[in-house]
Amino acid sequence: MKQLVLARRASQIKVELTQRVRKPYKEVIDVSWGDPHKAGVKPLSFVRQVIAACLYPQLLNSDRLPVDVRQRAQSLLKGCDGGSVGSYTATRGISEIVHRVSEFITRRDGGAPSYPENIFISPGSQWALRNILNVLVNSEASHRTGVLTPMPCYSVSLMSIRGLGAVTVPYNLREEQGWELQVEELHRALESAKGVCDPVALYVINPGNPAGYVQSRKSIQEVIQFVSEKRLFLLADEVYQDCVHGENSEFVSYKRVLAEMGPPLSDTVELASFHSASKGFLGECGLRGGYVELVNLDPAVKKYIYKLFSTDACAPVLGQFALDLMMKPPQPGDPSYPLYSVETQHIRTALVHNVKRVLEVVNNLPGFCCQPVKGAFVFPRLHLPPKAIQKAKEMGMQPDAFYCIRLLEEASVIVSPGCDYGQKEGTHHIRFHIMTPEDTMEEVLRRLSSFHTQFMKDFS
Amino acid sequence: MKQLVLARRASQIKVELTQRVRKPYKEVIDVSWGDPHKAGVKPLSFVRQVIAACLYPQLLNSDRLPVDVRQRAQSLLKGCDGGSVGSYTATRGISEIVHRVSEFITRRDGGAPSYPENIFISPGSQWALRNILNVLVNSEASHRTGVLTPMPCYSVSLMSIRGLGAVTVPYNLREEQGWELQVEELHRALESAKGVCDPVALYVINPGNPAGYVQSRKSIQEVIQFVSEKRLFLLADEVYQDCVHGENSEFVSYKRVLAEMGPPLSDTVELASFHSASKGFLGECGLRGGYVELVNLDPAVKKYIYKLFSTDACAPVLGQFALDLMMKPPQPGDPSYPLYSVETQHIRTALVHNVKRVLEVVNNLPGFCCQPVKGAFVFPRLHLPPKAIQKAKEMGMQPDAFYCIRLLEEASVIVSPGCDYGQKEGTHHIRFHIMTPEDTMEEVLRRLSSFHTQFMKDFS
Repeated sequence: MKQLVLARRASQIKVELTQRVRKPYKEVIDVSWGDPHKAGVKPLSFVRQVIAACLYPQLLNSDRLPVDVRQRAQSLLKGCDGGSVGSYTATRGISEIVHRVSEFITRRDGGAPSYPENIFISPGSQWALRNILNVLVNSEASHRTGVLTPMPCYSVSLMSIRGLGAVTVPYNLREEQGWELQVEELHRALESAKGVCDPVALYVINPGNPAGYVQSRKSIQEVIQFVSEKRLFLLADEVYQDCVHGENSEFVSYKRVLAEMGPPLSDTVELASFHSASKGFLGECGLRGGYVELVNLDPAVKKYIYKLFSTDACAPVLGQFALDLMMKPPQPGDPSYPLYSVETQHIRTALVHNVKRVLEVVNNLPGFCCQPVKGAFVFPRLHLPPKAIQKAKEMGMQPDAFYCIRLLEEASVIVSPGCDYGQKEGTHHIRFHIMTPEDTMEEVLRRLSSFHTQFMKDFS
Repeated sequence: MKQLVLARRASQIKVELTQRVRKPYKEVIDVSWGDPHKAGVKPLSFVRQVIAACLYPQLLNSDRLPVDVRQRAQSLLKGCDGGSVGSYTATRGISEIVHRVSEFITRRDGGAPSYPENIFISPGSQWALRNILNVLVNSEASHRTGVLTPMPCYSVSLMSIRGLGAVTVPYNLREEQGWELQVEELHRALESAKGVCDPVALYVINPGNPAGYVQSRKSIQEVIQFVSEKRLFLLADEVYQDCVHGENSEFVSYKRVLAEMGPPLSDTVELASFHSASKGFLGECGLRGGYVELVNLDPAVKKYIYKLFSTDACAPVLGQFALDLMMKPPQPGDPSYPLYSVETQHIRTALVHNVKRVLEVVNNLPGFCCQPVKGAFVFPRLHLPPKAIQKAKEMGMQPDAFYCIRLLEEASVIVSPGCDYGQKEGTHHIRFHIMTPEDTMEEVLRRLSSFHTQFMKDFS
């Protein structure tokens, strides 16, 4: 809930800025969320044109929209009852879109088959995660249900797991090895749960959040072997799969690796894998569209999951459309392709530029140390002077939360503190999102550098 | 889950129709959902124009959209971070929209104040209901938590309550008195829970679903008195508040009646009231926007509810916009007003026409008997011949589900069976939605009459 304090103070500062309270900066920059549009990234024209035309079909009669936009909108509307995006859809999502998702997965995974009946579209991936957790958590057992979670870990997932009455069992990622997931550590964590709870699942985030790593195929194989031996359900949060960059890094899905490992593993390991239209190049967080693919689940369990999903009728139709457009963007030769290509290339270039500059700048600041980054977030370690730690203690705050509040107050930049995600005792971090326009990231780095230098001086 | 069987068979029939399997009707008509657009009602132009312009702001530069549409879109976009509907919003919803909701409630309730900090926008009302139930259900107590629920009751709410591990304690609505809620029956139901569960809340649906009644102010006062005496939390599902018609019927909210009853009741009774952009004239089910207003809740409880909402980041932005537009539609003098007025009047006229015709036709069919209807659904009682009941038994089906399947097979009309909602032992009903275009309802009635006459003959 640290973010809440930050968010509240940020709102106050925004109001103060309109009231002309004197501040060093005119504008608050918020890179604390995995939310590209909030940070200034522009939506893709193709996506917005198609969805706007579906909402207001009179636009289909105008030749101001490219012909492939109009065709796509017409085809999407055919999947809606009454031809309106205002109708409920089937519980698992519009059938044509569910098929599109499974085709995308099959293509992405080099032909490892994906079946539409295993896919559930949801209003965002967290929502789907909670429904799956709901099936795994046994609230009537004498021992509480445990879920192995990475440390550091996306804080909302921790809240979801604990909110359902389960216990999170942290396994440490090795910061010094680029936040590597090591199997010995999974064994240690599982052992540590003995007598405390009954672990039933392992939760992984790849590409990493908050720490921006990307797992290798070998690492994924080891994890799959581990869950198979220990009979754990595998929850793979893969929502940042489109934000991978840098040499020698490639996203490979858990589903693909599992399929390639062959029987008996590929027929037995129970896997739920999550993806979303909120991240990647679309960045359409506000439309709320995600999905989960279930692998090797018992049909009776899937039936129960269906029932859970059905209590919310369906995911937002326009979020479903966003997924569809993400799964099948314009292709070379389509009228919308050139613009689409320019826009996505622009985002990609910014991402590559940003990660390079962030590492350059942050690693040159005394007291900061950042591992190589291959995903959408950076999570540099912050070596704070003892006086700063003492001051935070006096104020009843975690040291990195204190740092973030000061950064907001003095530089109008919002990042989030490592304490929100869990971190090795005695270490401190900050997390920020690097999927922003280049000039935004440059401004963040300028403000951070100048703030940090002063901060270190003040507390030296 | 009866609806699932129907829905599946309906999909098959739709496929058979495209394959030219000979059927008596060319088109399936589905009036089993509270979904106006699915049944052919047209979306409101103003709503769609504003939201399309927010999605694709290039439309703001065109004078093809009325000036008030463009102004409204610009003002809504100001509430979005980065000026994009693709950004996450605050957990409780965009602040300006939350304020708009509270202004709407205050106006609707004759000035009884509503406070923005008590309002949470959600992706639909059921979603909000489940979050509130989550706080009320104690899964660790020795007795299971109980919730008093009407019989008949909207089936998804029953699923939500039971899905959280609580027990539903039915109180009967008196069909012969127009589905009246009688306080003696609440006492009886509460008494019946003794030794079975620990009732903590009373759930009411007004206007009624499935039974289309509208509660009087006096009836609401009695309910409030009852929950106050018995220290029950009051859950008021009021999503059909805009679908009230007929003489001597007026929707009065629980919130208003509670405020008008004055202290100590108005300061102590804990109330959660639900509303949605899915029903009423907008009928935007697919955009997923609803809200809950909380009254007299302890701040610590509200904080916990905030945390539950925050695990899903936020409601879909365009669903939030739909709520905003519902709360403040075009006013006389605005450029969009004339069209808006024609479109809503058209829906209203159809509703009044449909209810009159449904009662005329259904009450003239032998074996049918329908109470006066003031809301969006009719729930006529069906006196089935013993041979039909016997046949249903042989097929392992509830008699009214058997009737519905036959209606679908032979007349391509989908309605839902009373057994989905709970009904007095030995009685049978069907439910259907009457917010449809006039010609659709006429066609439904034509097919129903001819099917029913044959059905009664076949089983006489």
